[in-house]
Amino acid sequence: MVGDESLIIVMRAEATSDDVAHILDRLSEIDAEAHVSEGAQRTVIGIIGDRIRVQQLPWEAFPGVERAVPVLKPFKFVSREFQSEDSVVAVGTALVGGGNFAPIAGPCAVESRDQLFASAEAVMKAGATILRGDAFKPRTSPYSFQGLGEEGLELLAAAREEFGLPFQVEILDPRDIDLVVAYADMIRVGTRNMSNYALLSELGKQPRPVMLKRGLTARIEEWLNAAEYIFKEGNHNVILCERGIRTFETATRNTLDISAVPVVKSLSHLPIIVDPSHSAGRRELVAPLARAAVACGADGFMVDVHPSPETALVDGPQAILPAEYEALMDDVRALADAMGTPI
Amino acid sequence: MVGDESLIIVMRAEATSDDVAHILDRLSEIDAEAHVSEGAQRTVIGIIGDRIRVQQLPWEAFPGVERAVPVLKPFKFVSREFQSEDSVVAVGTALVGGGNFAPIAGPCAVESRDQLFASAEAVMKAGATILRGDAFKPRTSPYSFQGLGEEGLELLAAAREEFGLPFQVEILDPRDIDLVVAYADMIRVGTRNMSNYALLSELGKQPRPVMLKRGLTARIEEWLNAAEYIFKEGNHNVILCERGIRTFETATRNTLDISAVPVVKSLSHLPIIVDPSHSAGRRELVAPLARAAVACGADGFMVDVHPSPETALVDGPQAILPAEYEALMDDVRALADAMGTPI
Amino acid sequence: MVGDESLIIVMRAEATSDDVAHILDRLSEIDAEAHVSEGAQRTVIGIIGDRIRVQQLPWEAFPGVERAVPVLKPFKFVSREFQSEDSVVAVGTALVGGGNFAPIAGPCAVESRDQLFASAEAVMKAGATILRGDAFKPRTSPYSFQGLGEEGLELLAAAREEFGLPFQVEILDPRDIDLVVAYADMIRVGTRNMSNYALLSELGKQPRPVMLKRGLTARIEEWLNAAEYIFKEGNHNVILCERGIRTFETATRNTLDISAVPVVKSLSHLPIIVDPSHSAGRRELVAPLARAAVACGADGFMVDVHPSPETALVDGPQAILPAEYEALMDDVRALADAMGTPI
Amino acid sequence: MVGDESLIIVMRAEATSDDVAHILDRLSEIDAEAHVSEGAQRTVIGIIGDRIRVQQLPWEAFPGVERAVPVLKPFKFVSREFQSEDSVVAVGTALVGGGNFAPIAGPCAVESRDQLFASAEAVMKAGATILRGDAFKPRTSPYSFQGLGEEGLELLAAAREEFGLPFQVEILDPRDIDLVVAYADMIRVGTRNMSNYALLSELGKQPRPVMLKRGLTARIEEWLNAAEYIFKEGNHNVILCERGIRTFETATRNTLDISAVPVVKSLSHLPIIVDPSHSAGRRELVAPLARAAVACGADGFMVDVHPSPETALVDGPQAILPAEYEALMDDVRALADAMGTPI
Repeated sequence: MVGDESLIIVMRAEATSDDVAHILDRLSEIDAEAHVSEGAQRTVIGIIGDRIRVQQLPWEAFPGVERAVPVLKPFKFVSREFQSEDSVVAVGTALVGGGNFAPIAGPCAVESRDQLFASAEAVMKAGATILRGDAFKPRTSPYSFQGLGEEGLELLAAAREEFGLPFQVEILDPRDIDLVVAYADMIRVGTRNMSNYALLSELGKQPRPVMLKRGLTARIEEWLNAAEYIFKEGNHNVILCERGIRTFETATRNTLDISAVPVVKSLSHLPIIVDPSHSAGRRELVAPLARAAVACGADGFMVDVHPSPETALVDGPQAILPAEYEALMDDVRALADAMGTPI
Repeated sequence: MVGDESLIIVMRAEATSDDVAHILDRLSEIDAEAHVSEGAQRTVIGIIGDRIRVQQLPWEAFPGVERAVPVLKPFKFVSREFQSEDSVVAVGTALVGGGNFAPIAGPCAVESRDQLFASAEAVMKAGATILRGDAFKPRTSPYSFQGLGEEGLELLAAAREEFGLPFQVEILDPRDIDLVVAYADMIRVGTRNMSNYALLSELGKQPRPVMLKRGLTARIEEWLNAAEYIFKEGNHNVILCERGIRTFETATRNTLDISAVPVVKSLSHLPIIVDPSHSAGRRELVAPLARAAVACGADGFMVDVHPSPETALVDGPQAILPAEYEALMDDVRALADAMGTPI
Repeated sequence: MVGDESLIIVMRAEATSDDVAHILDRLSEIDAEAHVSEGAQRTVIGIIGDRIRVQQLPWEAFPGVERAVPVLKPFKFVSREFQSEDSVVAVGTALVGGGNFAPIAGPCAVESRDQLFASAEAVMKAGATILRGDAFKPRTSPYSFQGLGEEGLELLAAAREEFGLPFQVEILDPRDIDLVVAYADMIRVGTRNMSNYALLSELGKQPRPVMLKRGLTARIEEWLNAAEYIFKEGNHNVILCERGIRTFETATRNTLDISAVPVVKSLSHLPIIVDPSHSAGRRELVAPLARAAVACGADGFMVDVHPSPETALVDGPQAILPAEYEALMDDVRALADAMGTPI
Repeated sequence: MVGDESLIIVMRAEATSDDVAHILDRLSEIDAEAHVSEGAQRTVIGIIGDRIRVQQLPWEAFPGVERAVPVLKPFKFVSREFQSEDSVVAVGTALVGGGNFAPIAGPCAVESRDQLFASAEAVMKAGATILRGDAFKPRTSPYSFQGLGEEGLELLAAAREEFGLPFQVEILDPRDIDLVVAYADMIRVGTRNMSNYALLSELGKQPRPVMLKRGLTARIEEWLNAAEYIFKEGNHNVILCERGIRTFETATRNTLDISAVPVVKSLSHLPIIVDPSHSAGRRELVAPLARAAVACGADGFMVDVHPSPETALVDGPQAILPAEYEALMDDVRALADAMGTPI
């Protein structure tokens, strides 16, 4: 059982007592309790019952119903109510969450051994604990570079060997899961696939931790529902990543929703990190946004670092240079110390 | 070759002549032409060259560049410039586009033989030319009904046999393509998967026409890029479906972007239809929005019709009754006659 | 008394019985009734009491409260529940609402006698019943044309004399009310001032009907609240105008929220018209959007018509030519006939 | 002269040489230079000329024009290009900007002498340098508390006397300017009035510094244009305040656009502060967001502090307690020290 559902049904002004009786009949069929409260202008029905059975009835399609307001959140296992202590996720040798801060960095896409190794060496020396670098890239245009595929995974494994950093990659297709599991330490679901439930369910059945990026247009509650898809299949190692939402503002590629950090921490026990590179889309904004993420309590941040951004095949404008990353990590350590949570 | 790209690079006020020279060097390496124009406050560089080579360089990562403004659209085959006459797509016995108006209707999800057949019979009698009904449902919560799977496809095929209507279904997973192709007359990509490029590319390689719904947060240009993913793999039978975008307004489930109809018609030769049911999320809004779609020139509209919405397992609040659909179709025929484009 | 308020308070999982008792104490102080319902995971309190007294308490600031859900709408006089029959507003000789359709047209801004008269003559001949044309223009940049002021009002009055059309103008400053009342038949509040409550309250105290445009970012409920500001001061002649909302889409200047038409009609008795010119920002979209407005039941539409758009000082790109307006009016009449509501 | 405008006109594919010639004629009439560049698929015209004359022509209304892309920003005096060093604004005894950090705090609205003084004393002791507290409140509903008016101003002046803090208040109506100037040290334009140009222009002509909040739906560029309205009338003491924008997310009242801080700092010399209280709308989010503001380089932050939030007449749910403010100020000082910019 997934637990009790509590729901409030507000009737229309013109609803009849038959409309109310009809709803009460359906509630008794599903063994739910109902409390009817009649105001001067509206009747309100409070419901308590089995979550799945209550959720599946289309209450707003019943005659006389104005709206149905859920009292509980639709997700369960990922909620702070289900587990009050912070989750800690192990990514190879690195821990994330529950006081373990994770600096994640590397190139947006793996382009070549030289490019990847230059970036990996730099971020390792500056203090990153997890390497990023993609082998499969979802691109808005079919004519853009789509990634090196398995060759990219091999290069990432070689970089792990050389620099001692576990790595993560994005996955686009459920048919690639076995391949990616064979190489990577963590699998990432990108913003475009946050609602690809076929992919999420499969990722719930494999052994690697999953980083779930927020959909460009997902409300926080929908994002946590997407995490629930993974969790309920048995994989409890999920890390959330805020990476900006789509708004009307055009000065940045997306709008980093920094408030999502404390909101998620109040609703869920899962670690949450921030990706300032993909949210801003502009190199000069990366450091201030990364510092903001640390100051508001994120469990880590992930940035694109490229030895030569102007040759990058993907997202060059947002990549910072190795020296900029080093300076940022110094700032971040100072902020973390000041907050009493040294990295 | 995908064709010429034309791009305008605006330099920062503080850019140096070395910055400009550096860009001109890279342009000559990729055989692109450049025209430099120096204003009092900004230097601007106009570029003409091979689209893929010009697109792949991250111009905004170059020193001294403020922004790069593309002159041409990133998509090609789906553009009105590539093909000036309207595409006509055959879906089983029905034609869509180029003056062929397609009323599409049926239940949101297939729930049972009785439910499907009642809906199919009603919409056929009222004048629908294509049946809708899903066997795989993407649901925000993992605890909601997920569809009947292959059993649903079998029921749809039986309904086609009985009522003579070709049918379409949504697909969620590239691994289901063979199964769906074996049954359906058209395959639909839902709003959550508009940017699932792995799925789109595979759909470009199979024989059925594809209905591509607009992503909840997709700009029209991104939507046409997604269509290009299907088109460039060889499948030219693509129908677009506007189904509402996500905005701050909460009175409707989504905001139907009715302007997308004339905008798409100016940019592309593909047919475009409107789904008022999923955009509004409320039954009483379906008819006015469907009429608006007809009046502004859509090539069809798709609505949820359910014999008993309050028993629906999915989206009951937005389903209209058979009698309401019949009345709507009468209105639609009158409007189409008034516009000189009888259905 | 503005009427009963009904409110539902959802307590946090960790709320104590003291928290609940504390709320009940405050409710009894304001003579409100409370119904407490204790579920397994949440306590819910239903409240019925005087609207103003209940609204003014910051329930979400009370210890243990998760959220407070209002059951009734915050506006009263403009609601369909307060008045079930449609309002009809007289604008000079023209009626708007309750089956009276209002084609409103004219130049965006008054620029000269020749320009205004050419436009006014054309729209009058094509069938417009109200003239638009502004004397005060709110412009994003302080360096753009700001309108002719009183000279513009004089020209509009002369055009009314000549062509027999009542006219409306926008107002920007409460200090201009007497001046505008002396000339105009209707006063318009633009999208930028929808939440300028100082201006709205003053407009509630003067004798002219008011057209209230929807704020670029206003939810429908906030828009109706703004109308309530005018209504409660005694001016019951309010017409709403949907003119597009701000979204992430950049293909149009704003996104016309066509669903607002049926939504407003269900919530309020006020007439609602549509402005396709300012929502689209592009001339070629005006006619399809105007037709959509008619088909979904709007009480009128307002378009910019300019004899020579490329000389327009304001919004030239969206103005249609007199001949285009004439063709549009023919289409609109045909659609209205088809719908059984001839103009 | 406001300076050169540089504009790029992209012609449609089907534009004729007459269309181009027609544009060149108009350009020569306004003494602007043009550079024509003919690609295989598009002709592009680069323009340099007087900003006002170029801006006022509606280029997108000309035959054959696809779009017009401005090269320069529309604002001038507030731009970083016009003045490279940071502006420092004096508010009574406090300085803001250019390394001067401003903690601003106090109650949302002045409700009584006791409430105001309790809040003012607490924030003064914790280190605030400017007091907030409103006498005129813009409320979504006309039935909500609208502020104490002049009595509120008198109480604020008494608090300044008692605790030595300069204060700021919101203004809603240009007719109140003399009154507010007589009392306040800084005048605030709220989010609802950011585009109330009548009010902005008047504020440009009075002696007090102005805090300009970002409109709920304003792009950063529009916000800077609004600042330009004040600046060009002669008042150079303008402080910007980011307070959240409207998005689809409903977990927070608004979405704090933290990226606006570094973006504004790159575009403008004006100080920018952050209001975490009004953006989040929830007390528990205030401290993390305030810390984020400091870490990303804001020139100050403004928070609602109330001695007893559950009695607050306005925005109680977002007010923090005096003790919470004291703890926040300790954190903020530690962060500022860590960043090498002690407060």
